[in-house]
Amino acid sequence: MIVVLKNGVSEEKRAQLIDWLGEQGVKVHISQGEFQTVLGLIGDTTRVDMDLLGSLSIVDSVKRVTEPFKCCSRKFHPEDTVVDVSGVKIGGGNFVMIAGPCSVESEEQIVGIARAVKASGAQLLRGGAFKPRTSPYDFQGLAATGLELLRVARRETGLPIVTEIMGTSALDLFQDVDMIQVGARNMQNFDLLKELGRLRKPILLKRGLANTLKELLMSAEYIMAGGNERVVLCERGIRTFDDYTRNTLDLAAVPMLHELTHLPVIVDPSHATGLARMVRPMGLAATACGADGLIIEVHNDPLHALCDGAQSLRPEEYEKLADEVRRIREVAVR
Amino acid sequence: MIVVLKNGVSEEKRAQLIDWLGEQGVKVHISQGEFQTVLGLIGDTTRVDMDLLGSLSIVDSVKRVTEPFKCCSRKFHPEDTVVDVSGVKIGGGNFVMIAGPCSVESEEQIVGIARAVKASGAQLLRGGAFKPRTSPYDFQGLAATGLELLRVARRETGLPIVTEIMGTSALDLFQDVDMIQVGARNMQNFDLLKELGRLRKPILLKRGLANTLKELLMSAEYIMAGGNERVVLCERGIRTFDDYTRNTLDLAAVPMLHELTHLPVIVDPSHATGLARMVRPMGLAATACGADGLIIEVHNDPLHALCDGAQSLRPEEYEKLADEVRRIREVAVR
Amino acid sequence: MIVVLKNGVSEEKRAQLIDWLGEQGVKVHISQGEFQTVLGLIGDTTRVDMDLLGSLSIVDSVKRVTEPFKCCSRKFHPEDTVVDVSGVKIGGGNFVMIAGPCSVESEEQIVGIARAVKASGAQLLRGGAFKPRTSPYDFQGLAATGLELLRVARRETGLPIVTEIMGTSALDLFQDVDMIQVGARNMQNFDLLKELGRLRKPILLKRGLANTLKELLMSAEYIMAGGNERVVLCERGIRTFDDYTRNTLDLAAVPMLHELTHLPVIVDPSHATGLARMVRPMGLAATACGADGLIIEVHNDPLHALCDGAQSLRPEEYEKLADEVRRIREVAVR
Amino acid sequence: MIVVLKNGVSEEKRAQLIDWLGEQGVKVHISQGEFQTVLGLIGDTTRVDMDLLGSLSIVDSVKRVTEPFKCCSRKFHPEDTVVDVSGVKIGGGNFVMIAGPCSVESEEQIVGIARAVKASGAQLLRGGAFKPRTSPYDFQGLAATGLELLRVARRETGLPIVTEIMGTSALDLFQDVDMIQVGARNMQNFDLLKELGRLRKPILLKRGLANTLKELLMSAEYIMAGGNERVVLCERGIRTFDDYTRNTLDLAAVPMLHELTHLPVIVDPSHATGLARMVRPMGLAATACGADGLIIEVHNDPLHALCDGAQSLRPEEYEKLADEVRRIREVAVR
Repeated sequence: MIVVLKNGVSEEKRAQLIDWLGEQGVKVHISQGEFQTVLGLIGDTTRVDMDLLGSLSIVDSVKRVTEPFKCCSRKFHPEDTVVDVSGVKIGGGNFVMIAGPCSVESEEQIVGIARAVKASGAQLLRGGAFKPRTSPYDFQGLAATGLELLRVARRETGLPIVTEIMGTSALDLFQDVDMIQVGARNMQNFDLLKELGRLRKPILLKRGLANTLKELLMSAEYIMAGGNERVVLCERGIRTFDDYTRNTLDLAAVPMLHELTHLPVIVDPSHATGLARMVRPMGLAATACGADGLIIEVHNDPLHALCDGAQSLRPEEYEKLADEVRRIREVAVR
Repeated sequence: MIVVLKNGVSEEKRAQLIDWLGEQGVKVHISQGEFQTVLGLIGDTTRVDMDLLGSLSIVDSVKRVTEPFKCCSRKFHPEDTVVDVSGVKIGGGNFVMIAGPCSVESEEQIVGIARAVKASGAQLLRGGAFKPRTSPYDFQGLAATGLELLRVARRETGLPIVTEIMGTSALDLFQDVDMIQVGARNMQNFDLLKELGRLRKPILLKRGLANTLKELLMSAEYIMAGGNERVVLCERGIRTFDDYTRNTLDLAAVPMLHELTHLPVIVDPSHATGLARMVRPMGLAATACGADGLIIEVHNDPLHALCDGAQSLRPEEYEKLADEVRRIREVAVR
Repeated sequence: MIVVLKNGVSEEKRAQLIDWLGEQGVKVHISQGEFQTVLGLIGDTTRVDMDLLGSLSIVDSVKRVTEPFKCCSRKFHPEDTVVDVSGVKIGGGNFVMIAGPCSVESEEQIVGIARAVKASGAQLLRGGAFKPRTSPYDFQGLAATGLELLRVARRETGLPIVTEIMGTSALDLFQDVDMIQVGARNMQNFDLLKELGRLRKPILLKRGLANTLKELLMSAEYIMAGGNERVVLCERGIRTFDDYTRNTLDLAAVPMLHELTHLPVIVDPSHATGLARMVRPMGLAATACGADGLIIEVHNDPLHALCDGAQSLRPEEYEKLADEVRRIREVAVR
Repeated sequence: MIVVLKNGVSEEKRAQLIDWLGEQGVKVHISQGEFQTVLGLIGDTTRVDMDLLGSLSIVDSVKRVTEPFKCCSRKFHPEDTVVDVSGVKIGGGNFVMIAGPCSVESEEQIVGIARAVKASGAQLLRGGAFKPRTSPYDFQGLAATGLELLRVARRETGLPIVTEIMGTSALDLFQDVDMIQVGARNMQNFDLLKELGRLRKPILLKRGLANTLKELLMSAEYIMAGGNERVVLCERGIRTFDDYTRNTLDLAAVPMLHELTHLPVIVDPSHATGLARMVRPMGLAATACGADGLIIEVHNDPLHALCDGAQSLRPEEYEKLADEVRRIREVAVR
């Protein structure tokens, strides 16, 4: 950590600050420049309160030199992590296609869609049993029944299942799920992240609507610090002033996350745009900039879907897209 | 709900849409204008998927006419709600001063600060026992011990206590807390909101970093729909591109929320700005635009605070501010 | 335009409003629903002040049914516009590669880069002579000399030139430029837009840092309403809370603009990210989602570039990218 | 400027970088820490391209130590600047009330409103003759005639006039205006700023919709670097995801700007909120956090105003507000 002092700070005040820093357990290296004094803090700076330091009247600014994340940083782990979801590999050159309906609605629906997306090349089946809805009056998902129907669809098709958890109280119900999804609104539900860190099960962690990449990585760090290193990150759009699409898909996050971390990064073009007709172009774009996979909503009857029908592809549209994705990868991956 | 059709839609397509709307249980009133056709949907439109409707090729746009919130809307409940927290009234002309440290650190600390803020006019004591921290390596709070120390401070001073809950698993520990705070990152932790709806205890609901006022009200609605109507809203800054302050305090939210809802609205200038020297001007501004109270961080020794020392006032600064707030209210409240 | 009245509005107030609307020159069609009254305004509603209407105490909300843009709307002009820049076609299936340095620095530099990018397949040469810099102390461009050097490079290579104008006072100097660029910060410099509308010369209009797609189209409308229909739109990143890249490239704007307008849409991955190593992935992504071209900064010696060296590709990197772009288009364009 | 190198950089690469920095005219002070190497750049670093430096493969990060603004920085000019507008003082304890209609519409209108606001305590008259409108089809202002009517109103009432300029071509028409306003959309119209720097006339500089405080100060610096030091800053709301108010009024900008600069800072609650009923609360809040003045839209007949009627106060509302503002100042100013 580097602390830049303001000009004209007295010797006495400077000495007081260095004493206080010593109390925090760090050593201080003083660099006296022509125009400014810079303190380099050496040792375990994680305990030093950067904001407090920056607010002191004699301090001009503070800068952390080392990243606060260890487990997920590529600096300490240069090789790509490959996450294995019941035999399906993600990352390190393995591209994953995840597909399925927003919500599980009935056995007929989920099994039918599972068969269709499998035929089109999907490797994992998604489907919501617990739904985070802005309004308490909207459909909240089939809950335990929905999880049971997902298991039926898995038995029928062999596709491992991915589904969202809403809180720690439902953890027992998720023991037989292949990959647990943490939704955007729960990205900083730290209690939940800690519990997931105790599992040894793949986690799909979605970026929050207004969270920085660093915060996304810190949330991955919560899971990994608990011992569960099987984390896949997902960009799904952030909130901006723009209102033509539901969210703003931040695709530059994909190559940037690949620099910062060894974890796989996939993209959800369905939730990012909220519009079925935008899923193809944004899915291809995500592939072209190096995503490790796509999670896409597919529904056999979007008009009658209980939620998010507006953003669902029909199976035949999905099949065509899956083929184009493969061809884009032949050009983009090197 | 109003549906505007695109120009040149065929009779047949229009009839199909109206049939489909009928299946959803709503009646349709057709208004044929010179330039466009507008459908007015009558009945229970909460089950109609607005996004799906808007995505249909024959639909130009969709508009919800009635607000999706009922319990918290001022339309259905014109009188201000007054929330009673163990004898301290908030709203309807009752202004509340909540103060205390970011984190409970020790008995000496919390009792000392409680005495100081009470002497300066604070009516409720705040203090964190469970802390939501971006990094898993930062101080996470004293947990159950922290709650116990808050109870000690309450016994010593008579101040009711407000403290943050992080998830449903800790609910039992909060039975003796006077007011439960839901932090910004948990504003859309719907599992938690539903559980709090089952209590009959005041809830302090903070606005999320990138949440609209409507979403804040929908989260209040989750609690109220469960039967717990004792909700106080809190503006604490939103996330923007600006980086001189930690967040951007959106004070226009105060009068706007007062229009939309009968619930009390308070402001947290400490977390909004992250800087102790900004707490006074923003606290006065919040008072001037009609807030029903202020929640402010106060610490007897900010330099040694375990978290958020940068934004804490010292007790003597708080006392002075409390006095100015009273005088601002004499001008602003009418 | 549709006006939804609040519940319980008196006959008298409603009659007053309808009278006032009549004064504005529009006819009113009343639709009396079970729960609300909706007024449909018929005629020339461009003169009606939507914000004022929405602020009236008896009005619940107002919605514009027809788009306020005419010239650039695809509704009134379904075919793609093809803009011809001195023989180079953009749009309607014609993909354009624009390349060159951020700033013109010397004859040797601009001619050398022009030759290199032409050899790699670029069709238009970009280069700044007038530079919009946040600080008055930064390099402001070579001005008239820079324009002269661009003409030299055009003579040497045959590449038409694209360069940015900063205000109306320099218009005379731009008579011999092939395509005039309006930068993001000038997107709503309406005086400039009006002057450009009087020309019969292609305009490259960049989206502002915090402008909606509708505002971008309204700025194009300023130019087109003046009679100059040769406008190309450019997405170059918007400003969000994220700080890992300079701006957030909003690629979903590409397919969305293609829906809304018949004008060509190109993408600038260099300014959007500010990082040379992000130009390839984001350039490929832009191509994959259907952009009509890419404008990319190329410099033979990025380390010594006078501005924006951090985001410049070297010619050999550009050549490789140009080849990949062609192959992505074979998959993505249908 | 401080440059932090990545770990494990070779001696040779480091030497190359230091040589290159030498070419840029700065001296380098090397600070070798246990975990990282930090270079302190000494001398005129304004010519060093921070972004380029930060993008080099051996560099971890770069930090500017000295602010890039000189003229407007409080560091170099600790005393408040007082700007005199034809006898009306702004800043340094002098609070200014500016009022008038959005647009000048007729002699009767502007003279009538000028008399009314003067009677209520306004010291400067505002009114738009050139209007920046998003749509080319909206009312664009009376132009030269509007300026003439403002002069008539000034003659009748003695109130100095403030009005907005849209570009350099109209400069001659503004010679007799007391204070020239630069609107939000022109905050980074650098050509215009440079021209205004050549005048010796007070400038009212509004913050752009998505501009940081630093960018606002750099735009003031453009004017001041030209020799015109009579600049007043104006916060008028920024653009966020929130849609209940037109913009988000960032009141914390007021005390923060007062720290950073010696220039006066006023607030425009009318444009920030777009709603007349929000002007009072936000005007009082702006006063409470230390603004040096308020610019407020007042219209004698808001229903018939040609633009922005929704946000105009009636004269009697303004008078009441002016009185409350004075009383808030008695509490807030110390």
